[in-house]
Amino acid sequence: MNSSNGFSALFTDFYSLTMAQGYLKKGMNRRAVFEMFFRRQPFSGGFSIFAGLGTLLEKIQQFSFSVDDISYLRSLKTFDEDFLEYLSTFRFKGSLWAMDEGTVVFPQEPLIRVEGGLIECQIIEGMLLNIINFQSLIATKTARVWLASGKGSIMEFGLRRAQGPDGAMSASRAAFIGGAAGTSNVLAGKEYGIPVLGTMAHSWIMAHESEEAAFASYAEMYSDRTVFLIDTYDTLKSGILNAVKIGKKLAEKGKKFGVRLDSGDIHYLSVEVRKILDAAGLKDASISVSNDLDESIIETLTRAGAPINMWGVGTRMVTGGEEAAFTGVYKLAARENSSGKMEPAIKFSDNPEKTTNPAVKQVWRISDAQGMAVADVLSISGDPENPDTIEEGKRYTFWHPSSDYRHFFQTIDGKAEPLLKPRLAKGSVASSLPTLEEIRKTVRGSLDSFDQSYKRLLNPHIYKVSVTEALRSLKIKLIENYQGTLVPGTLGSGTQDSGNI
Amino acid sequence: MNSSNGFSALFTDFYSLTMAQGYLKKGMNRRAVFEMFFRRQPFSGGFSIFAGLGTLLEKIQQFSFSVDDISYLRSLKTFDEDFLEYLSTFRFKGSLWAMDEGTVVFPQEPLIRVEGGLIECQIIEGMLLNIINFQSLIATKTARVWLASGKGSIMEFGLRRAQGPDGAMSASRAAFIGGAAGTSNVLAGKEYGIPVLGTMAHSWIMAHESEEAAFASYAEMYSDRTVFLIDTYDTLKSGILNAVKIGKKLAEKGKKFGVRLDSGDIHYLSVEVRKILDAAGLKDASISVSNDLDESIIETLTRAGAPINMWGVGTRMVTGGEEAAFTGVYKLAARENSSGKMEPAIKFSDNPEKTTNPAVKQVWRISDAQGMAVADVLSISGDPENPDTIEEGKRYTFWHPSSDYRHFFQTIDGKAEPLLKPRLAKGSVASSLPTLEEIRKTVRGSLDSFDQSYKRLLNPHIYKVSVTEALRSLKIKLIENYQGTLVPGTLGSGTQDSGNI
Repeated sequence: MNSSNGFSALFTDFYSLTMAQGYLKKGMNRRAVFEMFFRRQPFSGGFSIFAGLGTLLEKIQQFSFSVDDISYLRSLKTFDEDFLEYLSTFRFKGSLWAMDEGTVVFPQEPLIRVEGGLIECQIIEGMLLNIINFQSLIATKTARVWLASGKGSIMEFGLRRAQGPDGAMSASRAAFIGGAAGTSNVLAGKEYGIPVLGTMAHSWIMAHESEEAAFASYAEMYSDRTVFLIDTYDTLKSGILNAVKIGKKLAEKGKKFGVRLDSGDIHYLSVEVRKILDAAGLKDASISVSNDLDESIIETLTRAGAPINMWGVGTRMVTGGEEAAFTGVYKLAARENSSGKMEPAIKFSDNPEKTTNPAVKQVWRISDAQGMAVADVLSISGDPENPDTIEEGKRYTFWHPSSDYRHFFQTIDGKAEPLLKPRLAKGSVASSLPTLEEIRKTVRGSLDSFDQSYKRLLNPHIYKVSVTEALRSLKIKLIENYQGTLVPGTLGSGTQDSGNI
Repeated sequence: MNSSNGFSALFTDFYSLTMAQGYLKKGMNRRAVFEMFFRRQPFSGGFSIFAGLGTLLEKIQQFSFSVDDISYLRSLKTFDEDFLEYLSTFRFKGSLWAMDEGTVVFPQEPLIRVEGGLIECQIIEGMLLNIINFQSLIATKTARVWLASGKGSIMEFGLRRAQGPDGAMSASRAAFIGGAAGTSNVLAGKEYGIPVLGTMAHSWIMAHESEEAAFASYAEMYSDRTVFLIDTYDTLKSGILNAVKIGKKLAEKGKKFGVRLDSGDIHYLSVEVRKILDAAGLKDASISVSNDLDESIIETLTRAGAPINMWGVGTRMVTGGEEAAFTGVYKLAARENSSGKMEPAIKFSDNPEKTTNPAVKQVWRISDAQGMAVADVLSISGDPENPDTIEEGKRYTFWHPSSDYRHFFQTIDGKAEPLLKPRLAKGSVASSLPTLEEIRKTVRGSLDSFDQSYKRLLNPHIYKVSVTEALRSLKIKLIENYQGTLVPGTLGSGTQDSGNI
């Protein structure tokens, strides 16, 4: 992954390089603005968490072609020496705006804006999407798991089922941002400063002459962090009885301990185990559970009042489970034309929702007087002659981004906060990066500013993402220019079937 | 990921280290044998492809703790200096057996066997599962995609939606093994020698004054590899017409070209586009398609006779799509007891299928006289006094691994091939590793030896994985020893509900 001078810029799609050579040759490496946004919420949910920005900013600055990389490209017999020479000193020197890492985000709104030469914007596309898509997926999943547990204690145990070694590392980072208390992945602990956690494996029990001996031996060594895994032989007839026997000795020394359930019916077993622990006077002993958990199972157990203190969540959290990818895309928003003027760009689609919102944009989060989020609004950014800003105290009409008829009036009686902020200027970090702990706080604060109805696991309330009058007018104008006539009621129509298989 | 002296051995679950310290302290670092197997076929399918072995063998040999890693572990205040000293020179020195990478595999059968000290076997567990689980998932998915396309041309375009940078790299490797013709990921091209592929992006079209100008410019530069993306504005009213215009000039020069569809109804559009190309005399022009494809969509299109020559498959192939993890586990099969004798180990479960098959095992693939696979059989391996081998020409009774009553008789009239072969001896590679091209051949050969009914995408025929008489007897004996009495009809019973949430 790492070339001698950083993160290999070969981590890009081949067509980015063939197109880049074209832009260079034709003198078309003009200024461009790309925006990254996503198309729909994962997990049939009502929100996502924007994550991966810290990783992205670090990698962009290291992104370069080593001598080896250039030799490899030469061997493909597709690139000429001028272009290879250009790549050999390539560094991203553009600017990048983004929301705060950890922000609650919604479809259609730009999370990142990249400004620079067409080539540099394009070469980083694959890496940018790869990093942001995956970490946002996992941070979102973990936030859902964390909320389902009643903001409980989530242990991320995903290393063995994550998608490759870095899949595990990135997932540990994103899960911690999203709400996990720690990880079992020791390397993630070292690299990211995340607390490392763990209990014991079945093989520990099986390697001893008896379950009791295994428990005794562990408790002796790790008296401050003993969690007995009690399902190796029989949870109720053996495991919990041995845990009580050894646990009592720990309790006598003033040490807390716990037990872990990893199979069987977790609700039934947790209730029975709690009864046995309480009857033995071990009210402080905690119950951890694991075994293919996700937010639905956790919510069901939490609502049923299962006496569970900690949740070990692996596979389905670090891979996304039923949904393994975030739908982030990276689209041209504006470009410099041949006379040197920036002009807005739009990508049409048969499907109105897939027609992009043109121009360089800002995202405003409108909140009410109580600080609760009401709507996000996209405006046109960077036109000093026609500033399209949103001011507190004023009244506006905001429009649905793809349906002509839907709009609402809003007086800004709380705040209107612009979410996109500068992160890289001329390729270098514009302001210091937050720690993972700070990003966790952003997540929690951002989640708190949304009504419960948007955070429901199933059938959540859909949060409004709208456009200003100015942006709506521009979009309609560009569509009219292209189509000659606008088909009423649809922004972006088409003659093809809009099936999207 | 990489420490100064190799692949950081911190890439392990924390409990592997706490348990390891226990084994060292208690003088329990005795010989052990672990086996990796998986529990059920992914994607509701009938087969999986074993992949990742080459990556695993390379990483195991690099797996070590750097000075930095040791300092980090010291900072956790959980490990004593004796243990840290032990880790500082740790290298895996055990042996490893495995099936050929690329073999078609089935649940319950060991794919890998690890023999060594308890500590070394345990520390590599997380890495082993991480690598094999992910690559096997993706190789399996890709083989399904490839079969669904009628063994067609699959282009892996997954970089931007893969699970992290290495998720993309590992996926490119595994997808190539499973049947992809190449990847868009240039770094995977360099690292693994996989052909790199690509067409053009919508932004290329949008960066030019017109679609026609964009096509002309690309065709001029890449006349040997031009594929026009024709859906930026309107596939039938604009894209294909411009592609024909520029494509004719390429055809006049004797160059082949293609078009790519990335939205709309692929069946309808591919038929219309084919008609237009043919009418223009461009019968050699190929049609590529992309846009959220997977094996079900590809099979539907192929069966419907859609005139598609190449398939660009991304997200759902490199993440597994609806199923994002392979169910591989790593379980103790045998251990040295305190008197120095190896004895078989078994892990019980309330769920009969989750009770492990005890002892060190071999897997035999039985084929008929025509070379078609009939069944896989697990036998006890490595007991010279009671060899449990399967010989050609003989007749055997083979048993269902978890149901008492199901068995069948089989005369070996074809071959009985042992699938597990030595790969590492004392930590070093036992035989030279195959190239990715050779592994692809293994996949194709292995798939060919299975009847079509096992490879059906939906409701496939279930292939038999059975155990020998000797293994069955041992399993029953161990369960009887543990339970006192065997509940008839179930191997591994339990008193708990067997719900597995």
